[in-house]
Amino acid sequence: MNAEIICVGTELLLGDVVNTNASDIAQGLAHMGINVYHHEVVGDNPRRLRECLRDSLSRCDLVLLTGGLGPTYDDLTKETVAAHFGRGLAMDEESLHTIERYFARTGRKMTENNRKQAMMPEGCIILQNPNGTAPGCIIEGENGKTAVMMPGPPREMRPMFEGPVTDYLMRRAHDGMLVSRTINFFGVGESELEARLREMMVSSTNPTIAPYAKTSEVQLRVTARAATEEEGLRLIEPVVRKIVEIYPDQIYGFDFHTINEAVVKRYTDAGKTLAAAESCTGGLIASRLVDLPGASAMFGCGVVAYSNETKQKLLGVSAETLGRYGAVSRECALEMARGVRAASGADVAVSTTGLAGPDGGTDEKPVGLVYVAVVSDRFEEVRELHLARGRADDRENIRFRSSSHAFDLALRALRQL
Amino acid sequence: MNAEIICVGTELLLGDVVNTNASDIAQGLAHMGINVYHHEVVGDNPRRLRECLRDSLSRCDLVLLTGGLGPTYDDLTKETVAAHFGRGLAMDEESLHTIERYFARTGRKMTENNRKQAMMPEGCIILQNPNGTAPGCIIEGENGKTAVMMPGPPREMRPMFEGPVTDYLMRRAHDGMLVSRTINFFGVGESELEARLREMMVSSTNPTIAPYAKTSEVQLRVTARAATEEEGLRLIEPVVRKIVEIYPDQIYGFDFHTINEAVVKRYTDAGKTLAAAESCTGGLIASRLVDLPGASAMFGCGVVAYSNETKQKLLGVSAETLGRYGAVSRECALEMARGVRAASGADVAVSTTGLAGPDGGTDEKPVGLVYVAVVSDRFEEVRELHLARGRADDRENIRFRSSSHAFDLALRALRQL
Repeated sequence: MNAEIICVGTELLLGDVVNTNASDIAQGLAHMGINVYHHEVVGDNPRRLRECLRDSLSRCDLVLLTGGLGPTYDDLTKETVAAHFGRGLAMDEESLHTIERYFARTGRKMTENNRKQAMMPEGCIILQNPNGTAPGCIIEGENGKTAVMMPGPPREMRPMFEGPVTDYLMRRAHDGMLVSRTINFFGVGESELEARLREMMVSSTNPTIAPYAKTSEVQLRVTARAATEEEGLRLIEPVVRKIVEIYPDQIYGFDFHTINEAVVKRYTDAGKTLAAAESCTGGLIASRLVDLPGASAMFGCGVVAYSNETKQKLLGVSAETLGRYGAVSRECALEMARGVRAASGADVAVSTTGLAGPDGGTDEKPVGLVYVAVVSDRFEEVRELHLARGRADDRENIRFRSSSHAFDLALRALRQL
Repeated sequence: MNAEIICVGTELLLGDVVNTNASDIAQGLAHMGINVYHHEVVGDNPRRLRECLRDSLSRCDLVLLTGGLGPTYDDLTKETVAAHFGRGLAMDEESLHTIERYFARTGRKMTENNRKQAMMPEGCIILQNPNGTAPGCIIEGENGKTAVMMPGPPREMRPMFEGPVTDYLMRRAHDGMLVSRTINFFGVGESELEARLREMMVSSTNPTIAPYAKTSEVQLRVTARAATEEEGLRLIEPVVRKIVEIYPDQIYGFDFHTINEAVVKRYTDAGKTLAAAESCTGGLIASRLVDLPGASAMFGCGVVAYSNETKQKLLGVSAETLGRYGAVSRECALEMARGVRAASGADVAVSTTGLAGPDGGTDEKPVGLVYVAVVSDRFEEVRELHLARGRADDRENIRFRSSSHAFDLALRALRQL
């Protein structure tokens, strides 16, 4: 099955909003094994949408549209698409009730315009929208062509696409469903993974194995098409086991989005606490933990010791260490971690000190040199990192990757407790 | 002049990369007064690119393309576009030398493939790429149609678009140049700005006045088309002065990207230092400062006091305050700011304490309640904020907006020093 994506919205056309819907939908379709050959963006203009839709449906069988389902006069996606399929619009009572309930729940006033959102193409499949007022819908044409319409705001579009639309497409395209597991790696690059697992990735078609590189970490997503979830997991399991055997030390978990999420989950589950003393990461370790709900149970204390004075006063780093080895040193990193652990009483403490640049590097201590330390009762480790790549975004990258290394060390220390 | 944007790249089509190029280009064209009616994404496939280009150039006069200028066999944008205009490719010696110098500078090895990147369409205008190996180019067809080709990586595309491509298009479209100033607002919403300045925004065509809402702040960009920079600034100046008169208290600066940048710049210029004690923002204040090069001169100390224990031990918040008013209180916020100021010796200190949610709220202290304090020798202020909006991204939003309020208070305190 071939598909195209049409995103409708003047705010997209003018560039005021970045089109994350297209990439979210495209990724999802790729997982389902549905080919995508075009994305298009058009404004809230019925003539241009009509032309765009006509061209798309002449090239493919399935068009997914986002946007233009709102209550205002220029939201015309449903009208335009329905007309293409020779359908009229009719009031859908269930959608109307859902919209009324949504307004009652959020305490906002419903206007006459919002009734328009319950006018749906005749004979369509309606997709309820628990996160907003605009229902989506699917029109199946007599000619085997299908149009799926979803709302434009990503927080409404995404759950609708990942839920009912994915279920619908999997039934249509494969007479089944998608089941997937994510393997979380730290400390191994995407290209190394691809090289080592290439044969497995190419030969395995169900499940498929696809790498996703994020800043500082890599994921492998193993995705099976199956009639049931059990069957899917049965297909996935031996593949995952084999990969774990190949990388026993670089896999930090499964089905996490990022390594900070693993830290919050694992520490909370174990009832242990973590503290952080940050120089070059400057609050990023704390912030990446506190980003996540529930972090308060495992993270109570962080010190951003950007100056030497703070390193001494709040963390007890000795003047001798700073004088002899400098702030960017193995010794200073260790004393910072020990200092914040003592001040906070946490089970484990991590620290970072380094040169994020762009200025301040020397031949002996170049930009990109970072020390990351972890300490607990039974475990101490300092990692020396060289993270500069000579790029414009080095500063951001050095800080982010340093914080991820601190999380990796924090997970390793937790396993030793 | 009407334009379309075509982004070439299988990674875009599969959704592995979000298409920020299209929105960046679209915003720029909107500023120049060039209308855009379509964006398209196609993969690295010459047939589909050929069709897409043909359709686009039948509808408009100017097509901007990104991607497909790389060294590998599937990078075929130049070849495909040149063929559409009936042009061949020829080696451009200057581009070749630039590529050779780029490899020499970054210490990487140049391959035979990279020579292909210096093969340029006959009679084109070449756009040098100081940030990568792929030059861009412009083909002006005999029929008045124009194609602009730029590399795909945003950090290469953006400077090329904002520099030589914008200059070229301004000369073509307006026989002039674009000059703009940004007015930075904090504490006033986009809709309020639009309502109050609507008449001015609608009636002013040169310069144009356009609002941009960012998380927690708003910018107005005033953009003039003029023959010279002096003339542009002369057109802009009275408009800016008028807006400053209307909002004497909510404008924190000019031409900043975000309010944290203003804090680093202003404190550094004044030779003053700032410290932060963070509870609900959890390192975000520190992180948003340390994000910026040069922050070390004005920010030496931050404490992330997520637990009450840390608030007491590191910041000296009294047990009585915590017992009587609770951690989320005006009193606690003040003591936190005073505490970190005392510990660090900074000129000014800010603090945050609040409920970012999703859990932990009560009727008396609901999620979204945040206190932000600032203290200096001569100035103390606590702001009570109610930031919940009942949305899925509330936690992130509450934390981010709280940190922006801390920056706003830090700027106000600095003005009183």
